[in-house]
Amino acid sequence: MRMVDLIEKKRDGGELSAEEIQFIIKGYTDGSIPDYQMSALSMAIYFKDMTHQERADLTMAMVQSGDQIDLSPIKGIKVDKHSTGGVGDTTTLVLGPLVASLGVPVAKMSGRGLGHTGGTIDKLESVAGFHVEIENQEFIDLVNKNQIAVIGQSGNLTPADKKLYALRDVTATVDSIPLIASSIMSKKIAAGADAIVLDVKTGAGAFMKTLEDSRFLASAMVSIGNNTGRKTMAVISDMSQPLGFAIGNALEVKEAIDTLKGEGPEDLTELCLTLGSHMVLLAEKADSLEEAREKLIQTMKNGSGLQTFKTFLESQGGDSSVVDQPEKLPQAQFKIEVEAQEDGYVSEMTADEIGTAAMLLGAGRATKESEIDLAVGLMLNKKIGDRVQKGDSLVTIHSNFEDVSQVKSLLLEHIKVTKNPVQKPVLIYEEITG
Amino acid sequence: MRMVDLIEKKRDGGELSAEEIQFIIKGYTDGSIPDYQMSALSMAIYFKDMTHQERADLTMAMVQSGDQIDLSPIKGIKVDKHSTGGVGDTTTLVLGPLVASLGVPVAKMSGRGLGHTGGTIDKLESVAGFHVEIENQEFIDLVNKNQIAVIGQSGNLTPADKKLYALRDVTATVDSIPLIASSIMSKKIAAGADAIVLDVKTGAGAFMKTLEDSRFLASAMVSIGNNTGRKTMAVISDMSQPLGFAIGNALEVKEAIDTLKGEGPEDLTELCLTLGSHMVLLAEKADSLEEAREKLIQTMKNGSGLQTFKTFLESQGGDSSVVDQPEKLPQAQFKIEVEAQEDGYVSEMTADEIGTAAMLLGAGRATKESEIDLAVGLMLNKKIGDRVQKGDSLVTIHSNFEDVSQVKSLLLEHIKVTKNPVQKPVLIYEEITG
Repeated sequence: MRMVDLIEKKRDGGELSAEEIQFIIKGYTDGSIPDYQMSALSMAIYFKDMTHQERADLTMAMVQSGDQIDLSPIKGIKVDKHSTGGVGDTTTLVLGPLVASLGVPVAKMSGRGLGHTGGTIDKLESVAGFHVEIENQEFIDLVNKNQIAVIGQSGNLTPADKKLYALRDVTATVDSIPLIASSIMSKKIAAGADAIVLDVKTGAGAFMKTLEDSRFLASAMVSIGNNTGRKTMAVISDMSQPLGFAIGNALEVKEAIDTLKGEGPEDLTELCLTLGSHMVLLAEKADSLEEAREKLIQTMKNGSGLQTFKTFLESQGGDSSVVDQPEKLPQAQFKIEVEAQEDGYVSEMTADEIGTAAMLLGAGRATKESEIDLAVGLMLNKKIGDRVQKGDSLVTIHSNFEDVSQVKSLLLEHIKVTKNPVQKPVLIYEEITG
Repeated sequence: MRMVDLIEKKRDGGELSAEEIQFIIKGYTDGSIPDYQMSALSMAIYFKDMTHQERADLTMAMVQSGDQIDLSPIKGIKVDKHSTGGVGDTTTLVLGPLVASLGVPVAKMSGRGLGHTGGTIDKLESVAGFHVEIENQEFIDLVNKNQIAVIGQSGNLTPADKKLYALRDVTATVDSIPLIASSIMSKKIAAGADAIVLDVKTGAGAFMKTLEDSRFLASAMVSIGNNTGRKTMAVISDMSQPLGFAIGNALEVKEAIDTLKGEGPEDLTELCLTLGSHMVLLAEKADSLEEAREKLIQTMKNGSGLQTFKTFLESQGGDSSVVDQPEKLPQAQFKIEVEAQEDGYVSEMTADEIGTAAMLLGAGRATKESEIDLAVGLMLNKKIGDRVQKGDSLVTIHSNFEDVSQVKSLLLEHIKVTKNPVQKPVLIYEEITG
């Protein structure tokens, strides 16, 4: 088998066999297939796409390129949730304890990553003492005991994907649905998920800017999951504006606590109920979506979700008293209001630009080496559709430096107010179950 | 400027500016742009093509990537002829002396290369003493004196093209008209041509198998030539069967001598007159194609073409007595006839397979290290459309080893004889002048 022939086959619209795809990914991982052939193939895939079978085969080849986490010692169906990434997305912190309290095992491997705010681990580290440096056996024991634990990424998962992603980044082949979908799904499968609930964001703050592209990506991932034996479904949700009110690490932990109590922002609560219902259903802890949703609402009302969160924090060294005294979370030195310049209705609140404002405050990492300030971030006081009067606070800036003029002007530039009433954006566009 | 943005621009169907193309080729030549980006761009070009302006800019960027031959000390318009390559193509050996005898300066830089037979230099080295290791100044003086000289390739011509071609070869991006056309044209322009006559072969023995593809390539090259200030035209000629009768180095020299005398094969003679007329016209040594053709026929009849050939051989150390005594050329030890197995008409004579048969005898190089046997090759006794009777010789094998069973069976497999009369193939399909 020669790589040049396989590139030509794809270039001419042919379908690569499982064996051919394994040859490619194995060769690329061990270096026998050079970058310049892989980039030519990626560009050919960009133009000629891949069939459902090819996408599933590519995903599994990448899974097999490195270590795979064995979660079989954990009882029950391990359902993982994955978001394609947005701004102020606090769902993981809410969903984990909620579904765990219903007996769904949440065995989360998480990272730090780059972005507008930190990753799930960074956020949790806002809680004094909390840590994820635990042994695999302890991790498994904790999930079996509490139904929930979080561990830092370890092992050499999907090295082929890491290498290929870095290559795609510099060869203009990132925007290829089969390559994006197999990249995401390979990581979930290698991390041991039995079933997967996907939250595909759409809009200005999302990787996929249009509903059509989001739908293509969601369908592609659902198809891969189902073709590789992992029950998978996707929700397409709005990311034209940030989700919830909080953008920042400690601020989002506080918001997650409120939401677990049933006192969170409407959109965040609704998205958690939707995603959570599917997780509960896939884990076979309810017989219907309606039943799952009802149970989730109960865990908010009766405090069992919140209790699970406390137990979870304590089990990993965290000071769970923050749940009842959130003022113990890191606090920023300065709180500065960003005021509306005129009367009207909020018509735009561009998610990615608001996220950039939070990053400028220090809430996220621009490079791997950046230090995160867990205390800082933004609290939105208004969202799209809300009425405002001149002088109302649109956003509260939580900062550890006093001169926030740059952040303020960025926010004012991207929060638009118009005279005429504006509809709230749709929160959940579609649910795709394959 | 970032290469990844330029790849994306082309991927999305944009037109690259001259400055962007220069950036790419300069960076690729000096190594600052890596192979993996260049191969992704090549695949994007494969799918999205290039405009006429981009093709001209790419050609000139490759010309400027290395040395350029300065032929300005040679008087007159330097017209180069280029063939896209075929089997038994003896035109260069005939055309050179013919047009030179009409005052067209022929300053030929030639190579050895791989193929069914040797390159022009190999063929000429069948003449005892002939050599191309001459200094640049001597080369120029010889052309000014005799109107014709041949020199071996020297200098670092179009290094970008060499590097890119090697990359395309292993990334399935060879078959791209803009890349093929700019590759060929950059070499001709760097070698100092003022005007260019292209012989684009079409059919089984050619790089371009279909007339449509040949037409695309011919048009692309003519456009590049005219857009870079070199008057250029192309002839699309048949390569479904070998040209002429001889395939092999010394055998083709003998055939060239016959053709210079006006006693050569009909197809070779006709193609030389057609290509030659355009060369004479572009060199402004005739006012019309008809006049040019008439003059060329005269040089065959009056022996001036043959005399120029003799002078040319002598000037570069060759024993010109071979012109009158071709038996002095290297002779193979064995002559073996390949006989028709039945009565009928020759219907197929697949050029590339016949070429392979000649290579098996040692007439060409399979790898750079192969030694050529100048004496061996094939003499076709029949061509497509000819009537044959069982036992007639189809081909005479000239070999230096006795057991030619493999060559014989390859020939018989690819020379087909049918019961019904067969039309001779068209020799010249089109002339494209832009």
